[in-house]
Amino acid sequence: MTDSRELIYGVHPVSEALGNRKRQFIRLLATLNAAQRIAGEAKAAGLEPEIVHPKELDRLAGPDSVHQGLVLEASPLPQPRLDEIERSGLVVLLDQVTDPHNVGAILRSCAAFGVTALVATSRHSPEASGVLAKAASGATEHVPFVRVTNLSRAMAELKDYGFQVVGLDSEAPALISEVARGGPIALVLGAEGKGLRHLTRQGCDLMVRLELTGPIKSLNVSNAAAIALYALSRP
Amino acid sequence: MTDSRELIYGVHPVSEALGNRKRQFIRLLATLNAAQRIAGEAKAAGLEPEIVHPKELDRLAGPDSVHQGLVLEASPLPQPRLDEIERSGLVVLLDQVTDPHNVGAILRSCAAFGVTALVATSRHSPEASGVLAKAASGATEHVPFVRVTNLSRAMAELKDYGFQVVGLDSEAPALISEVARGGPIALVLGAEGKGLRHLTRQGCDLMVRLELTGPIKSLNVSNAAAIALYALSRP
Repeated sequence: MTDSRELIYGVHPVSEALGNRKRQFIRLLATLNAAQRIAGEAKAAGLEPEIVHPKELDRLAGPDSVHQGLVLEASPLPQPRLDEIERSGLVVLLDQVTDPHNVGAILRSCAAFGVTALVATSRHSPEASGVLAKAASGATEHVPFVRVTNLSRAMAELKDYGFQVVGLDSEAPALISEVARGGPIALVLGAEGKGLRHLTRQGCDLMVRLELTGPIKSLNVSNAAAIALYALSRP
Repeated sequence: MTDSRELIYGVHPVSEALGNRKRQFIRLLATLNAAQRIAGEAKAAGLEPEIVHPKELDRLAGPDSVHQGLVLEASPLPQPRLDEIERSGLVVLLDQVTDPHNVGAILRSCAAFGVTALVATSRHSPEASGVLAKAASGATEHVPFVRVTNLSRAMAELKDYGFQVVGLDSEAPALISEVARGGPIALVLGAEGKGLRHLTRQGCDLMVRLELTGPIKSLNVSNAAAIALYALSRP
């Protein structure tokens, strides 16, 4: 099974992963310098780094990855089912947002705002999961990432749990500042350009837009997500 | 001079650039399909696309660039000096934020919030300017990008023009929501991890942080910028 291990690389992601007690580690590959840098965390995690040539790490992580001399192989983090997450706070759902850089950055913002869980349908290859973990800069260790087979069904399920389902769309008539507070909120984000699919849109209790004032009315999806999380986290 | 032309690629950046009357165009290279797609804009700009093989575009724009069959060579957009920008609204200054993906995404957010100008010291190579323009998704055509030789001097100059200079730092005691409104604001952003340099910090009237509530207290710099712009654009 190609899916039974994750590659995590880069100082920050590897360091956060080594500190996560829910992780099972397969092996840690490091350059001599990087091994010395991570020695404390590796020892605490019961791992002896295997010293390798940087080229071996390039090969494993991909030639363009900034692995900083560290590649950790670990079993995938156990993730909860949708019915196991806390039924409070903010949940973020991704409708066909698949670029691992964007998903990683969104996960990082989710960690910064204490989001309950991130929910998506997409599946990532082991290589993409490394990119995602790098962009998430350790956030993968803090935010439950729930994979579902059907997003509309997940939205209906969240409604049953008391969530208000809010979709983000640059053309929506209501403003994000108008969202009623007090109960749990599920925020649904679509891919850049495409936005939310018709069925996703229909499953939302409310569609809102960000208050943008300039000549361009669209943002990078991770930037839009960050603003939306900030806006919904404000009292 | 290697700096006397810019490479712009991708459907959206090229389309926005072709519509900008301040631009001077050198040539437009396109695949047959892409040339048909952009025919109207090219004609309006007085350009006849040169049909080339996609590999030629890969070579020009770089192998990893998503050029979507279009590469435009243009003279650099004329940019104002700091003493020529409007002395109102929001100005964003970058302190050693150099990654072109991040600078591009920040420029895009600046366009979405009608920022007066983006100010930076860093110089980008022609290749990096293509990456920047792609990430900015056309925003380069809307937001003046002022290059200065010394950031601290630029901050002092903006103070003379009546700007309140606000630095963003995750450890700052004040919150961004506490910034006094009414006058022009200059927002200073530092690189991830490193933050603002000592001298930059000293040049700020006020240091503020974003209100983050989760287990991770740092964001991708373009996400932090987006939130800060949203927060400062609110009444």
